[in-house]
Amino acid sequence: MDMGISQFDSIRAVEWKDDALHLLDQRVLPEKQKTVICQTCEQTIEAIRDMVVRGAPAIGITAAFGAVLAVRARYKASPKNWQALVAKDLDGLRKARPTAVNLMHAVDQMSAIIATLDDDPEGKLLEEAQRFHELDILANKKMGQLGAALIQTECDVLTHCNAGSLATGGFGTALGVIRQAFQDKKIRQVYADETRPWLQGARLTAWELLQDGIPVNLIADNCAAHLLKQSKVRWVIVGSDRIAANGDVANKIGTYGLAIAAKYHNVKVMVVAPTTTVDMSLHQGKDIPIEMRDSSEVLQMGGKNISHEKAGAWNPVFDVTPASLIDAIVTERGVVLEPSTAKMKAMMKMNSVFD
Amino acid sequence: MDMGISQFDSIRAVEWKDDALHLLDQRVLPEKQKTVICQTCEQTIEAIRDMVVRGAPAIGITAAFGAVLAVRARYKASPKNWQALVAKDLDGLRKARPTAVNLMHAVDQMSAIIATLDDDPEGKLLEEAQRFHELDILANKKMGQLGAALIQTECDVLTHCNAGSLATGGFGTALGVIRQAFQDKKIRQVYADETRPWLQGARLTAWELLQDGIPVNLIADNCAAHLLKQSKVRWVIVGSDRIAANGDVANKIGTYGLAIAAKYHNVKVMVVAPTTTVDMSLHQGKDIPIEMRDSSEVLQMGGKNISHEKAGAWNPVFDVTPASLIDAIVTERGVVLEPSTAKMKAMMKMNSVFD
Repeated sequence: MDMGISQFDSIRAVEWKDDALHLLDQRVLPEKQKTVICQTCEQTIEAIRDMVVRGAPAIGITAAFGAVLAVRARYKASPKNWQALVAKDLDGLRKARPTAVNLMHAVDQMSAIIATLDDDPEGKLLEEAQRFHELDILANKKMGQLGAALIQTECDVLTHCNAGSLATGGFGTALGVIRQAFQDKKIRQVYADETRPWLQGARLTAWELLQDGIPVNLIADNCAAHLLKQSKVRWVIVGSDRIAANGDVANKIGTYGLAIAAKYHNVKVMVVAPTTTVDMSLHQGKDIPIEMRDSSEVLQMGGKNISHEKAGAWNPVFDVTPASLIDAIVTERGVVLEPSTAKMKAMMKMNSVFD
Repeated sequence: MDMGISQFDSIRAVEWKDDALHLLDQRVLPEKQKTVICQTCEQTIEAIRDMVVRGAPAIGITAAFGAVLAVRARYKASPKNWQALVAKDLDGLRKARPTAVNLMHAVDQMSAIIATLDDDPEGKLLEEAQRFHELDILANKKMGQLGAALIQTECDVLTHCNAGSLATGGFGTALGVIRQAFQDKKIRQVYADETRPWLQGARLTAWELLQDGIPVNLIADNCAAHLLKQSKVRWVIVGSDRIAANGDVANKIGTYGLAIAAKYHNVKVMVVAPTTTVDMSLHQGKDIPIEMRDSSEVLQMGGKNISHEKAGAWNPVFDVTPASLIDAIVTERGVVLEPSTAKMKAMMKMNSVFD
């Protein structure tokens, strides 16, 4: 398996550099390419909560580095009692956002390592966080190959939100498959939902794909069914924020409606996510906590009201797509077609290329 | 039938006043309440094309008054040859926008009247245009009653775009039903899709309903399926820009996806439109011309790019919902349940209350 550098892989949203965590500020892309530098765990928590960084795997990686920053400060302040203090920081990281399970997985993993550390905890934890980051990129490249192999004939594809380099350690999940399939000449062009209210599709996915020279056409979210009816789109390819044991998928609000429309038009739905996104402790999608964000995200644009000042808004930022609407879940361990609990369990037991 | 003034009917988008056509500028609502005054047919054509006025019935009424302005100018300039010159103006009106058939109907009707006129053509045509406007409001009030009667139990409803007073002569089609049903205490609250890219739901529907004290919650368009899954929404109620003979409905982009999601959740779909929106000359929806507008409507907000400068966008502004996804078409002549060509023909032959 070639895990080398692809010509279609030029962006990193999360980087450890000069002893600090560097995050590409996704709130201001594509207008500005600004970096937010986190020197403390508290700054890292804020950056996750305020969506400087977003995307389930990227949030997990950010939290892993946040744990390193927590250990640095606590060990310096209290070389005897640092582990107890770090536990509080980790709790803060866990609570930064509720839906992406990668965050909890990353913090759990760092927490288990911290319990084994004694002297020089920062250096050792940093190695683990960097390894966690690198494994995510490798997982994405593996998923890129597995997912691209599912696309039989040259076609157009539609994606929702941003499940790209910007949402992960690099290369992307859904956009990793799209990068690979484009390189393999299986994809002619990509349609991207603009993805209101945060416009991840318009702001991030279009920018990211164009950085790598992949042609992209935006559509208003509500245009998807009309597109699927008359176009050459054969696959809807999306990421996920949490996958339940039965294959139900939580992802950006709109994924569910898109999957219903895809089913209606016989267009296939592929969900691409590393096993760090899978939560086998939850039987089904309705057990996944869905984050509600402030109504101002819908009612304002660029800080300006777009509606009547007395209008309300309902702003859940994720929805759950039942396994019955999903044709394939692609993880770095393998592909699950027509997902079920039994198939998900079998996939989770398979050896990863990284095991 | 009580056709009196409702407490929930306070807005007019099109008015003839001081010998000129006054249009509420819908491009700047709700931030500004500005009136555009048309003194000429050319100004009227521009106002339709630039969406100062929008909504199929409102466009038709605007065109009727535009014909009056054409007659005024042409009769004054050339009392002998004015009718031939007006014919060109009417052609310009017809071409201002392609999808709403009300525009063609209104121009045809004015054209037929013009052919009978001799002296004082402006005064006589103005009477006809005003009658055309008044009949639209009466039709909306009738549809309000017919549509509200279909709602059996108290529930929430979801609407898309703006099919209200702002889109018609007054009272509205979809929002006319909502006004009536709210007054009858059959509707608890209204959810409104924000309706990208032009944000008719956020800018217009929320503003219009709140003017009349009807509670409204906005959602991002892509949130509709998630809402239908878990809410008390029992009806999706929308307007239309053109209805084919078999009951296929062209309406604002997004209506089709919404109807698919409604069907999936067993939520009923009601289309409310006067018979001036019905085009019995077209067998089915795929014969309806769908307007494509500039990609900048998707790529910019408030004149500012929201995406990468090289991103493309696909911007059809209407879609077609097949009759099979529609539970009821409500016109001023009656209600068609589970539409078919035979039922639509029968409905069109029924006497209107205005015949």
